[in-house]
Amino acid sequence: MRKSIATVSLSGSLAEKLTAAARAGFDGVEIFENDMLAGPLSPEEIRARAVDLGLTIDLYQPMRDVEAVPEAEFVRSLRRAERKFDVTRRLGADTLLVCSNVSPQAVDDDALAAAQLARLADLAQDFGIRIAYEALAWGRHVSTYDHAWRIVEQAGHPALGVCLDSFHILSRGSNPKGIEDIPGEKIFFLQLADAPLLAMDVLQWSRHYRCFPGQGGLDVTSLVRHAVNAGYRGPLSLEVFNDVFRQADAGSTAVDALRSLIALEESAGISPLPAPVVPTGVAFAELATADPLPVTTLLTALGFRRTGRHTGKPVDLWEQGDARILVNHGTGTLPYSRLRSSGGTPIDGTSLTAIGLETPDPSAAAHRAESLLAPVLPRRRSSQDVPLDAVAAPDGTELFFCVTGRPGHADWTSDFTATANPRRTPSPDGTVTGFDHVALTQPWHHFDEAVLFHRAVLGLRPHESVDLADPYGLFRSRALTGAHGAPRLVLNLAPSPATDTRTRSQHIALTTDDITAAARRTRAAGAELLKIPANYYEDLDARYDFAPGELDTYQELGILYDRDEHGGEFRHCYTATVGRVFFEIVQRTAGYGGYGAANASVRLAAQRR
Amino acid sequence: MRKSIATVSLSGSLAEKLTAAARAGFDGVEIFENDMLAGPLSPEEIRARAVDLGLTIDLYQPMRDVEAVPEAEFVRSLRRAERKFDVTRRLGADTLLVCSNVSPQAVDDDALAAAQLARLADLAQDFGIRIAYEALAWGRHVSTYDHAWRIVEQAGHPALGVCLDSFHILSRGSNPKGIEDIPGEKIFFLQLADAPLLAMDVLQWSRHYRCFPGQGGLDVTSLVRHAVNAGYRGPLSLEVFNDVFRQADAGSTAVDALRSLIALEESAGISPLPAPVVPTGVAFAELATADPLPVTTLLTALGFRRTGRHTGKPVDLWEQGDARILVNHGTGTLPYSRLRSSGGTPIDGTSLTAIGLETPDPSAAAHRAESLLAPVLPRRRSSQDVPLDAVAAPDGTELFFCVTGRPGHADWTSDFTATANPRRTPSPDGTVTGFDHVALTQPWHHFDEAVLFHRAVLGLRPHESVDLADPYGLFRSRALTGAHGAPRLVLNLAPSPATDTRTRSQHIALTTDDITAAARRTRAAGAELLKIPANYYEDLDARYDFAPGELDTYQELGILYDRDEHGGEFRHCYTATVGRVFFEIVQRTAGYGGYGAANASVRLAAQRR
Repeated sequence: MRKSIATVSLSGSLAEKLTAAARAGFDGVEIFENDMLAGPLSPEEIRARAVDLGLTIDLYQPMRDVEAVPEAEFVRSLRRAERKFDVTRRLGADTLLVCSNVSPQAVDDDALAAAQLARLADLAQDFGIRIAYEALAWGRHVSTYDHAWRIVEQAGHPALGVCLDSFHILSRGSNPKGIEDIPGEKIFFLQLADAPLLAMDVLQWSRHYRCFPGQGGLDVTSLVRHAVNAGYRGPLSLEVFNDVFRQADAGSTAVDALRSLIALEESAGISPLPAPVVPTGVAFAELATADPLPVTTLLTALGFRRTGRHTGKPVDLWEQGDARILVNHGTGTLPYSRLRSSGGTPIDGTSLTAIGLETPDPSAAAHRAESLLAPVLPRRRSSQDVPLDAVAAPDGTELFFCVTGRPGHADWTSDFTATANPRRTPSPDGTVTGFDHVALTQPWHHFDEAVLFHRAVLGLRPHESVDLADPYGLFRSRALTGAHGAPRLVLNLAPSPATDTRTRSQHIALTTDDITAAARRTRAAGAELLKIPANYYEDLDARYDFAPGELDTYQELGILYDRDEHGGEFRHCYTATVGRVFFEIVQRTAGYGGYGAANASVRLAAQRR
Repeated sequence: MRKSIATVSLSGSLAEKLTAAARAGFDGVEIFENDMLAGPLSPEEIRARAVDLGLTIDLYQPMRDVEAVPEAEFVRSLRRAERKFDVTRRLGADTLLVCSNVSPQAVDDDALAAAQLARLADLAQDFGIRIAYEALAWGRHVSTYDHAWRIVEQAGHPALGVCLDSFHILSRGSNPKGIEDIPGEKIFFLQLADAPLLAMDVLQWSRHYRCFPGQGGLDVTSLVRHAVNAGYRGPLSLEVFNDVFRQADAGSTAVDALRSLIALEESAGISPLPAPVVPTGVAFAELATADPLPVTTLLTALGFRRTGRHTGKPVDLWEQGDARILVNHGTGTLPYSRLRSSGGTPIDGTSLTAIGLETPDPSAAAHRAESLLAPVLPRRRSSQDVPLDAVAAPDGTELFFCVTGRPGHADWTSDFTATANPRRTPSPDGTVTGFDHVALTQPWHHFDEAVLFHRAVLGLRPHESVDLADPYGLFRSRALTGAHGAPRLVLNLAPSPATDTRTRSQHIALTTDDITAAARRTRAAGAELLKIPANYYEDLDARYDFAPGELDTYQELGILYDRDEHGGEFRHCYTATVGRVFFEIVQRTAGYGGYGAANASVRLAAQRR
């Protein structure tokens, strides 16, 4: 189906919004009246700009407080409407949105509403315009879509139909099944928005917290299915009022928006996509650094050994168990992935720049990613490289779809020559068995986008969002996992956009079967572990039973502890931070599925010291 | 009454929180458990730190999910409680807060709850500790204060009382009158928080949006009065969970917090303050600039004339009608006020640094301001200066309490010598008659503080908060006015803390009786007025009737128009921005009381171009 977006959903001037929508690949736009009024472009200039950009103008919106009013008032509205019809026509749009009346002057009289809307449609027809009548969730007398449809039906005018808006319908808990009772040709327009389930005043909720389909808790998919079943064939159009999107770069918001519609078409069965190829684990994590010494010292202390060097570039492979870390110290601050692709801004200090995802079928994974607008990276940079499918995540992290050690598949490790320490030989005293999770702090304005990306593109399952109390503000944190638990990806959101992006921390959590041994080994090798205060252990002692001496050991080593309601246990400790990166060592038992959120405030406070 | 604050209300480490509370002048604190657990100070060290700072520790909090559970579970809780009592005692506190049970294990059995709480209190007594039992608004079976009191009454234990929390009581709409039915000595603790009226899920509301009394919409004053009538004589203690305060500087939050309690004591009739001396208008606005040419050129174009020069400093007085503007170009970037006081950081470009408030009794005004913790500035800097009472507002703007031209009062204008253009002579063709309002963009984390400051300290009346759509985010805007409309002060809040503080705009709105003449005069004198797009005027034409040619004139001059529901009219236009400052010219008719919010998005978009 055609895909549109209301200009109010994007940040910037109207010209910037149009450009962003076109670049992302939208077919059309709704022009939000205030965006036009505040701008220097005349309706004709806007129309010409849209034509140049390959966009249609599908709707002009909104006209308010027209119907079900005393005659004198309505006559004034007709005069106003005539001007709006003229603007709509000059924009090259054929549909004008009229919202249900919210004014105290409106009367509760469906017959009057129908008669006046019919007169309005009559006038619109003279301009070649159609009226799409929409029930606002907070309309004075008309607040449900079926009520709006009854009035439209009663009016019986060919230039009058309904506009359905998923937010207005679903926020009130209306059953969207009734949409199928409306003849498809009388559904003039379909506006789509999702929203987190906030249980707040619906007007505030609508104006500040809407998001793109798939980013909230409303079942937009079923609603779209009902509209299609009813015979609706117009555009799917996003109309999102969101305080964060208003501040975010319009270009990336538009891509995020279109991705949400593509995923929605898939889930509604309108338009299939290549099936998701869910990764089964993390193949490698790549760190880029100008000075490899601090991070390789830390890796060595953790029990990693350097097992390989890239055949063509200064990138080392470090291994322990199934955990593989690439240390890229090629061009000062440029990551391995940047060497493969091109350009990009240098990053200060050590940072995590790429993740290899163990993927059953890399090219199918890349194919799906591309169909969901993930920026595809070049498969190889030099003719010697093993070709690798890769895309960029919204935070810039490069995701490589990898196969490790499977016969008959190109293997990324072939790019590396074994060093003196033979590759694949486990470190003699290493206690790390693999990756547990990778945690990435996201750019502030792109958190919902990142969750949708990892869910839709990679097929990961998002878990509940949790709040973590840092001494200087609340972090939001949300985990996504693969079908069988791996890979585990944790997306964090800093308390405010004022948090400097260069300080956005990233961390790699490693699994062990013996956290005490792992912690002792790391410390004995000279690496500091994060010190956890005594008060924390006193509290643990009050809450749980431990073996004699167990808590003393934990306190000595800075090991944190959590237990879930089913008796699953989580023990974890942290290294110091190098650049933006730190490591966590974790031991899970009895199916503990979380990330120790109960300990996050203690950990964050310790990291602040 | 004694004044306390829960450490969770402030940002930072526990040590930072204690210091901030003590410096602001609090008598005591509640120690929030997580703040202690996450920190390196032992309970004894915290106690010693508090003693050093002159703070008592009034409460340790909270213990959760204790009462109304199966016996085996309760026995485990008793063991946990023993450790908490020990910590409470070591902290030097005598009261531990126990919240009503939220766990699914809790049973709906008041007799069991009472019996178990009595056993808990028995154990507490051995440690010299009291239990304050509090109904959480989302408690599983106990969610109202009167229910909590019935259980405490039934338990009949001397070491068991209730804790009342204004948020939990008022958020549920409970009637606080019933507090008077509780014997005062059984109210062990009183926690206070306000909140904006958000109609959202009470748990989310409580955890993210609480604010200090007087900053929200709950009637905390009456609740306190009821508690005092009941005989409560313990501390008034603030417990505020707020996403913004978590990020804000703890020092200024603590001052804001204590100010809210002082104002609350006044409104509850507990402790009187010097009566407010409400200003009656703006006496002057002071601009500091490194380069006076751009702003004085603009002032000249607006019809101002330089009428005086400060006797001792390079500060010029510019006048037109009753509008007086000081241009301080003394030490590059240091404002007049800074010359009077001392130090301060230099400000780039032209900025508004001080406002003179026409005040019936300056010393009484300063006396009240001081009692509400406003930083008092030196009354004069050199022996020649007229002594002026002045305080600093939360955004750093210096507020001078002035008398202009009233016989028998020290007059700030005496500091100025008339220039060649005789002082007080109206500009021959000036059309500005005085100040309409002054608008100041506030530091992001201190908006609620600023509103409370201007309301409590100056006695201004806050109006509803409105959202203004800038192309790159929503601004919040809130006006405060004096008893008879003047002065008008508008506080704005930028969309996010990422907005650079140096770009926080300020503006001075001037009144005229003839906006067309004022705009023409300004333009003829060479100053640009903000260009408003044609689309805006087309829309105005559709909405209202204008005299022939009227809209053409407005469009030519960039005059915006608004009309309220009573027919009051507002016409306004804007100059270019110099440094952080721009001017608005406004003409009000028929009692229009707003600020043209309907036009704000058009104005903001034009300023972005």
